Amino acid sequence: MIVSAMEKAEILVEALPYIKDFYGRRVVIKYGGAAMTDCELKQKVMQDIVLMKFVGMHPIVVHGGGPEINQMLSRLGIQSEFVNGFRVTDAATMEIVEMVLGGKVNKEIVAGIHASGGKAVGISGKDGMLIQAHPADGSGKMGFVGEVQYVNPELIEKVIENGYIPVIAPIGIGEDQQSYNINADLVAAAIAVSMKADKLVLLTDVPGLMMNPADSNSLISVLKVSEVENYVQEGIIAGGMVPKVQCCVEAVTGGVGRTHIIDGRVPHSILLEIFTDEGIGTMVVNE
Amino acid sequence: MIVSAMEKAEILVEALPYIKDFYGRRVVIKYGGAAMTDCELKQKVMQDIVLMKFVGMHPIVVHGGGPEINQMLSRLGIQSEFVNGFRVTDAATMEIVEMVLGGKVNKEIVAGIHASGGKAVGISGKDGMLIQAHPADGSGKMGFVGEVQYVNPELIEKVIENGYIPVIAPIGIGEDQQSYNINADLVAAAIAVSMKADKLVLLTDVPGLMMNPADSNSLISVLKVSEVENYVQEGIIAGGMVPKVQCCVEAVTGGVGRTHIIDGRVPHSILLEIFTDEGIGTMVVNE
Amino acid sequence: MIVSAMEKAEILVEALPYIKDFYGRRVVIKYGGAAMTDCELKQKVMQDIVLMKFVGMHPIVVHGGGPEINQMLSRLGIQSEFVNGFRVTDAATMEIVEMVLGGKVNKEIVAGIHASGGKAVGISGKDGMLIQAHPADGSGKMGFVGEVQYVNPELIEKVIENGYIPVIAPIGIGEDQQSYNINADLVAAAIAVSMKADKLVLLTDVPGLMMNPADSNSLISVLKVSEVENYVQEGIIAGGMVPKVQCCVEAVTGGVGRTHIIDGRVPHSILLEIFTDEGIGTMVVNE
Amino acid sequence: MIVSAMEKAEILVEALPYIKDFYGRRVVIKYGGAAMTDCELKQKVMQDIVLMKFVGMHPIVVHGGGPEINQMLSRLGIQSEFVNGFRVTDAATMEIVEMVLGGKVNKEIVAGIHASGGKAVGISGKDGMLIQAHPADGSGKMGFVGEVQYVNPELIEKVIENGYIPVIAPIGIGEDQQSYNINADLVAAAIAVSMKADKLVLLTDVPGLMMNPADSNSLISVLKVSEVENYVQEGIIAGGMVPKVQCCVEAVTGGVGRTHIIDGRVPHSILLEIFTDEGIGTMVVNE
Amino acid sequence: MIVSAMEKAEILVEALPYIKDFYGRRVVIKYGGAAMTDCELKQKVMQDIVLMKFVGMHPIVVHGGGPEINQMLSRLGIQSEFVNGFRVTDAATMEIVEMVLGGKVNKEIVAGIHASGGKAVGISGKDGMLIQAHPADGSGKMGFVGEVQYVNPELIEKVIENGYIPVIAPIGIGEDQQSYNINADLVAAAIAVSMKADKLVLLTDVPGLMMNPADSNSLISVLKVSEVENYVQEGIIAGGMVPKVQCCVEAVTGGVGRTHIIDGRVPHSILLEIFTDEGIGTMVVNE
Amino acid sequence: MIVSAMEKAEILVEALPYIKDFYGRRVVIKYGGAAMTDCELKQKVMQDIVLMKFVGMHPIVVHGGGPEINQMLSRLGIQSEFVNGFRVTDAATMEIVEMVLGGKVNKEIVAGIHASGGKAVGISGKDGMLIQAHPADGSGKMGFVGEVQYVNPELIEKVIENGYIPVIAPIGIGEDQQSYNINADLVAAAIAVSMKADKLVLLTDVPGLMMNPADSNSLISVLKVSEVENYVQEGIIAGGMVPKVQCCVEAVTGGVGRTHIIDGRVPHSILLEIFTDEGIGTMVVNE
Repeated sequence: MIVSAMEKAEILVEALPYIKDFYGRRVVIKYGGAAMTDCELKQKVMQDIVLMKFVGMHPIVVHGGGPEINQMLSRLGIQSEFVNGFRVTDAATMEIVEMVLGGKVNKEIVAGIHASGGKAVGISGKDGMLIQAHPADGSGKMGFVGEVQYVNPELIEKVIENGYIPVIAPIGIGEDQQSYNINADLVAAAIAVSMKADKLVLLTDVPGLMMNPADSNSLISVLKVSEVENYVQEGIIAGGMVPKVQCCVEAVTGGVGRTHIIDGRVPHSILLEIFTDEGIGTMVVNE
Repeated sequence: MIVSAMEKAEILVEALPYIKDFYGRRVVIKYGGAAMTDCELKQKVMQDIVLMKFVGMHPIVVHGGGPEINQMLSRLGIQSEFVNGFRVTDAATMEIVEMVLGGKVNKEIVAGIHASGGKAVGISGKDGMLIQAHPADGSGKMGFVGEVQYVNPELIEKVIENGYIPVIAPIGIGEDQQSYNINADLVAAAIAVSMKADKLVLLTDVPGLMMNPADSNSLISVLKVSEVENYVQEGIIAGGMVPKVQCCVEAVTGGVGRTHIIDGRVPHSILLEIFTDEGIGTMVVNE
Repeated sequence: MIVSAMEKAEILVEALPYIKDFYGRRVVIKYGGAAMTDCELKQKVMQDIVLMKFVGMHPIVVHGGGPEINQMLSRLGIQSEFVNGFRVTDAATMEIVEMVLGGKVNKEIVAGIHASGGKAVGISGKDGMLIQAHPADGSGKMGFVGEVQYVNPELIEKVIENGYIPVIAPIGIGEDQQSYNINADLVAAAIAVSMKADKLVLLTDVPGLMMNPADSNSLISVLKVSEVENYVQEGIIAGGMVPKVQCCVEAVTGGVGRTHIIDGRVPHSILLEIFTDEGIGTMVVNE
Repeated sequence: MIVSAMEKAEILVEALPYIKDFYGRRVVIKYGGAAMTDCELKQKVMQDIVLMKFVGMHPIVVHGGGPEINQMLSRLGIQSEFVNGFRVTDAATMEIVEMVLGGKVNKEIVAGIHASGGKAVGISGKDGMLIQAHPADGSGKMGFVGEVQYVNPELIEKVIENGYIPVIAPIGIGEDQQSYNINADLVAAAIAVSMKADKLVLLTDVPGLMMNPADSNSLISVLKVSEVENYVQEGIIAGGMVPKVQCCVEAVTGGVGRTHIIDGRVPHSILLEIFTDEGIGTMVVNE
Repeated sequence: MIVSAMEKAEILVEALPYIKDFYGRRVVIKYGGAAMTDCELKQKVMQDIVLMKFVGMHPIVVHGGGPEINQMLSRLGIQSEFVNGFRVTDAATMEIVEMVLGGKVNKEIVAGIHASGGKAVGISGKDGMLIQAHPADGSGKMGFVGEVQYVNPELIEKVIENGYIPVIAPIGIGEDQQSYNINADLVAAAIAVSMKADKLVLLTDVPGLMMNPADSNSLISVLKVSEVENYVQEGIIAGGMVPKVQCCVEAVTGGVGRTHIIDGRVPHSILLEIFTDEGIGTMVVNE
Repeated sequence: MIVSAMEKAEILVEALPYIKDFYGRRVVIKYGGAAMTDCELKQKVMQDIVLMKFVGMHPIVVHGGGPEINQMLSRLGIQSEFVNGFRVTDAATMEIVEMVLGGKVNKEIVAGIHASGGKAVGISGKDGMLIQAHPADGSGKMGFVGEVQYVNPELIEKVIENGYIPVIAPIGIGEDQQSYNINADLVAAAIAVSMKADKLVLLTDVPGLMMNPADSNSLISVLKVSEVENYVQEGIIAGGMVPKVQCCVEAVTGGVGRTHIIDGRVPHSILLEIFTDEGIGTMVVNE
């Protein structure tokens, strides 16, 4: 489709009310899934984030990195034990997780933001004692799978104040400087709560929460916290959606303005969520 | 034409390189002509200015107001004397000029910016002793037609620092607090020079400077200062274009980055100038 | 009378305790009446205001402009309809009110302050959305006579912070950017309340509230809010004094330190009020 | 003489141009002589200084204290040796000089400023290493009579920035923390130079420099640096005037705007110098 | 004992946890007794204070000066009357007290801090109206012995902010600028309370509070506020310890973190208190 | 050896002059070699760096990580090609270099600083576009071995301003966001020059430059830039010392105050260099 310069100008101007509404707002974005592995999608996410920054928002990026971790573990021949379907993070695995997340994925995102014209600083939860953690599993069976104990957002605040976009690897630090591997959704939610963010956006590989996953028209646009329990019992919230919805619930009940589960496979999904009245995906609200 | 949400997102993102380039830049806009009298065009100019502010630029608006002045003079039955085709500004006329520009046109623009979601402050050259002036014509025949003697941009700097868009009526103040009526193009150029602005944009009712005004394909996109004299002698720069080009020359030789004469009759002409590679109108460069 | 330099020095020093007491205080001055039409009185008011600024106070000037509005309406042959003795402000009238107040009277005061050595910025209630208004009369019979709905003092705070004296035309802005004509006393009171000003001074053409207007010795120096109702019923507060006293009551009950109705016909009446123990005029106190 | 409130207001307003001219200026005042010993004069000096501060100037007070030192030396039976008419400052004398100047005179002035409504901090040249000194006399015969080697005005700048009036005892500090007794005129001049002060005022017990000390009409109002040498040779600048004029010359040639030798016996002499066109005393100018 | 460079480095590093804990803390030190009269001890106290400043603490020094006052009174032949064992401070005595404390002792400490590499400003309670006082004894028998009425810590805060160590002579200022002689322990406690200091340290000439003053092993390391009354009745807190303990009680109940009575005769006693786990002396805690 | 608390206090105080001299100074430390691999030495370096920060210096850490890279390459079976003895960094190698340096070594140092009581932020040359690089070898044979093209120290300045210790992995970023592997000594020198650091310290595994490496008494304490060429020709500067000396020369000639090559195998070598008069190792000076 050919859009004339004039039409483009009109479209820019249409964005004004949204730009105004979101001016100065803090938006925590959990970045992962297809949006991170697909090269083209990845570039669009970077552009969305940089655009947000330039029009006055403060995006904060928290990323995962599962596929790259798996690949490196496999190259090194490190076998993982599984407990209840979750991978146990032993010391050898933890070393690789930290290297891949903090040294590779994190810096690639930073470079991607620079390539799109923004300025970013990549940190992990160890920097500035940002994410203090302890074992997620009291029994110790899961190894160094961690749980957020406390977020000290000072460093993030400073990075934002200094004009950079913070990009955060979900590594926690425990007693004796032990590293912990924490689920990126949980980290994003905890950071959003600690900063009283205005918005939390989880990028996923589904369109949102659906009444019937097989029916693309059954998307639930707005999910109330009060409905969650029933939906879980009815099996509508199931599988990978359970922890994602839980993160959103924790965030909105913890003071975050709005939370969204959106489809990262859709190009520019973040902009679509912010710059259109309909939004996309499922919004979880504190009602 | 129907543009999907996705396409709109793409178009926003296309603007990123321009947004980045102009971030923090100061752009003085001389606002007048059809863009001020046509209601729809007017609203688009307001939107353009507000958008510029939100994406990090610092627009400074200098406005004229000829038609509204004429209308009020006529309603009051004030006859104007003309010398060499220029209207003499006697005391009775000056009173009306100042009232119309500072009390009506200026505040309408301020209200228009607010209506488009921005924040503005309307001032005249009297406020903060912004524009100090003396008679343009030593002989005194032209009355209170003034010439900029000195611009003290402190107040404009403060207005920008405080987050507002300055809107300036081209009234000067002379000795004994005498008001002077100054051409808005000249005021815009003088302010741009005093602030070392990055850009000066003159909105006119022509497409720019043309080799042959009758041929819409003869637009001169780039005019070098060194070419001006020849073009004047050849009659290519003639009529109303003479003072406009002169303003641009004074601005670029006075330290302003770039100056443009653009067609205010084109909707969103300011955005088109800034957000497209080709730009529109005639750019005067210091070569 | 000849006063020696030494005696002048003594008099300056006598002012010290008052200067100390008022250091950093905000004083909203409603400027109007004879003090605005008489050329000599006018100059003295300007001097008083500039002196206040230099000795560390923060004067905020709100002005009226009735006579100049009437004169212009009459020159234009605009007839006014009256309802219950109040002039109806139709669209044609509103246009002139705004032009005269914002474009002429306001800027003359600004220039007068500069002439006395101060620095001022003239704004109207439209600038920075300072005064948000709606129709004073629900029935719509009064046209665009407005009532203050909300004052956003941010712009005034900034103007003061930047070292300028704010001069404010009593124009309000309503929905759809409609202008409203608001009584200057009401605007002064609303601004004083919004800024938690230390003092509100209304310049009038009477010595203050009097037990018997015919007896110049019957001035009521201090009026308690609790006495107002009785005085109104007794007819002591009557005519033009009713709204003025009402403004003072709203101000002191709204958190303004002190409010004064003083005689603008007395030269340097503002300084007399501030720099003498007795003060002048009537002070309304929240008791 | 009875001056009405109105006349007082007029007189305040007459001061406006002077207040404006001196706004933000730094004035170093050497305080001593009769103005310090006479109780009534003393109070007036305090008032003058506080008034200066409130109208926006920055007075810096350097004081002497000869009579109080003499009195204490005499009470303690400390005999002074004299060399060429100058008192030798041995260790026993220095101890008393420092105690009297820093502990008594300095704090009395501070208290006097507070009594007049100002805020002051009393320091000596030891505080913050303000005045670094060495022996004035290389031969060592004069003991601890010192010469200013270096002024580090940082502490004075901070005191001013914090809103206090600095009051300085003329004690210098040398190697090994040795205290030195330095002439207050010299200290005032050195401080004025180090701060690039706008004015240095020396309070004395004479009307200024006179062609003929016996003739009160022979005051020299303006003394050019270029005239000094001749006047010294002619004996017009003689006795105690020699060092005072020398201080002024050092100050104006060192970058201080203006320097004045005025009569501290005249009530409010400082205000008279600043707030009248004629000024009083002798002004030394760099010509 | 010879300590190698390497061992010294180890010892510096051992101090790290203490340095970290005390970073940014405010410590009010009452300086007096042997630590002030013994030359070597004095130098060590100065070093301790400067070291505290350089490693990030904010020491505030309040000093006494009894011996030097006595010596000067005796040199001047001023006889003191005593009431209940306390010296009556008549006007003649007060003059000497103020001179000696503010002019001699205070400035010697300032010079000592400079000699050890720090930056200090010496003030008395008169400067900036720091310590407002009234007679300690209502009957007037004690003369100008004062009691702290109000501490305005603004000046101390500014001195600290500006990077200097404040050194304070315990002189109070009453109505009519009357000076008062106040016990330095009381001043230190009042200042500590007014600033919500983290620590108050009283340097004394005893090891602390002892169960049996004759038995050096009977030191009470921690004294609870709740125990004080009993200990006073049992005579364990007696003599000079009564007011010292009282000061500590007032401080800790007034919001000061911790208070200590330590032995100023021990070299570097302040550092020992801060940089060792055991501390020294008696700590009074709010339990 | 047993050192008493008192002796420890004395040793702390001995450090005062050094602390004073280095207050506010910026010290770039190249951290590598044995000091990084030996666990005990490592802890001591962390302590030294934290101590420096607490006593007012600004340490900036640049680290290598050769052994850990080699180990990971070997675990992954990545073979390296060598050209003239230098390892070629192909894409597969670069990926591992970046992961190990930025994700493992960098964060371990950050955690170590936190364990010692400091606050750190770990970044690589990609963050904030800190280190812009291009291929070291024009022929392309060396792969992604980089050379510093430009250092933008803004991010480091901000990190310091915010109170953190910056820890920097020597990864550069080139066109198209390509990562480059740069020698850590070169990065440390370039950063020191870009910040006009006061000191550059290179931790090595030798005592410094020696006349005869076999003779431990032949250490050259001070090396002048003017002597370097001769020493190179004489073979005294040889092998690994050549690039290290070259870094120092570039730094001192580029405006860095002092540069040092010291023995990281000596415990607390950094403190020894700074806190002893003799220093350790070889200092390169710009003479």
